[in-house]
Amino acid sequence: MTRSNGEAAHDDIRVAVSTVIFSLRHGGEDLPSVVLPLVRRTRDPHAGQWALPGGWLDVSENLEAAASRTLAETTALTPSYLEQLYVFGDVGRSPSRVVSIVYWALVREDVASTPLPEDENVAWFDTADLPELAFDHRSIIEYALWRLRNKVGYSRIAHGLLPDLFTLAELREVYEAIGGKRLDPANFRRQVEGSGTLIPTREFRTGSHRPARLYRYNHDVELADRGPLPR
Amino acid sequence: MTRSNGEAAHDDIRVAVSTVIFSLRHGGEDLPSVVLPLVRRTRDPHAGQWALPGGWLDVSENLEAAASRTLAETTALTPSYLEQLYVFGDVGRSPSRVVSIVYWALVREDVASTPLPEDENVAWFDTADLPELAFDHRSIIEYALWRLRNKVGYSRIAHGLLPDLFTLAELREVYEAIGGKRLDPANFRRQVEGSGTLIPTREFRTGSHRPARLYRYNHDVELADRGPLPR
Repeated sequence: MTRSNGEAAHDDIRVAVSTVIFSLRHGGEDLPSVVLPLVRRTRDPHAGQWALPGGWLDVSENLEAAASRTLAETTALTPSYLEQLYVFGDVGRSPSRVVSIVYWALVREDVASTPLPEDENVAWFDTADLPELAFDHRSIIEYALWRLRNKVGYSRIAHGLLPDLFTLAELREVYEAIGGKRLDPANFRRQVEGSGTLIPTREFRTGSHRPARLYRYNHDVELADRGPLPR
Repeated sequence: MTRSNGEAAHDDIRVAVSTVIFSLRHGGEDLPSVVLPLVRRTRDPHAGQWALPGGWLDVSENLEAAASRTLAETTALTPSYLEQLYVFGDVGRSPSRVVSIVYWALVREDVASTPLPEDENVAWFDTADLPELAFDHRSIIEYALWRLRNKVGYSRIAHGLLPDLFTLAELREVYEAIGGKRLDPANFRRQVEGSGTLIPTREFRTGSHRPARLYRYNHDVELADRGPLPR
């Protein structure tokens, strides 16, 4: 694990932690948008461009704690799901050598709707209409979207974007927003009811439509199986 | 991305790259074993204990290049598959702060059977019978095994453990070794033939058993879909 030659070669590598934070935003009759908060850089490199929330890893701080801290500092958001995404460390991705450990997070739409900190340098963007991004952050976001679309197919992470009680139509809209296309309501109902992961409640959502039963998900089960990872 | 207070707090973090290298080993009538090479540490911390092959990340070296280099330096092996596994960076995992970027690799059994470098401090171990391991390397190996078992179910990475031409029985044994249980030959044949990912050749394996057709896999398709990751 140690090299016999000089130590200088790896002392110039700095470790950053950044987070891709997904939420949904409803608007009109269209599918909800998948949105994420970005932070405008106030210094070089890439001053003025938008970037993922993040910061330097502190020597006394665990990785996931650093992700949560930088997420709270820049957006004041608490995620319902947080997972390590990937490490981006190409030599040329920054003027100095920076290894970025990237996490991805889900934030419920009602949580994401609380105002961001009074800061013109923090804003939500539609993932389908991103501004110019600093460093390799566009490809990081593309990879995170790919992971989100894949994972929604074999885990229950869609629930991370929903409040505790939700209708089947609301759950279907999460899948539709992530997949980018409408789903057949009857087929969808059959599939999720057959999966046995939803718990029907005795409550109903009432309003302009006919009453719709509210469901909740089982908190005893993790949203995604992360295997024997140390906690 | 930059902090206004002192830089010292993150200058004491060093970045290492390690690799979990899986291969198979046949022996007798039992299932083949999933094996991996380990390196005995010759200095503290954990002198004398076995550890994953690895080394410090060089400032001018990409992550995957560092994984390939340390893999070649310690074991002289060339993998048929190499993928980033996870970053392990807990504060307490080493006396000094070390963030380990871990890759996992597959090596074909015929490649793994070539002798290791003349070094009593490098040896192959059965993953079912590991020695005492340095740092958190046991839980890293457990996580890599979990990833291998999961990924074999939804990708074609089993082919990374096989030579270019193989029989259905040899492919089945890879799945059996990773899953740890025998599979029904007729069911297995039906499933893989139905998947359409195997190309039958006109060659046959002859020997003590009746001739068995040799198959190859389509090199045009990646062993696993890694999405829009930068190469």
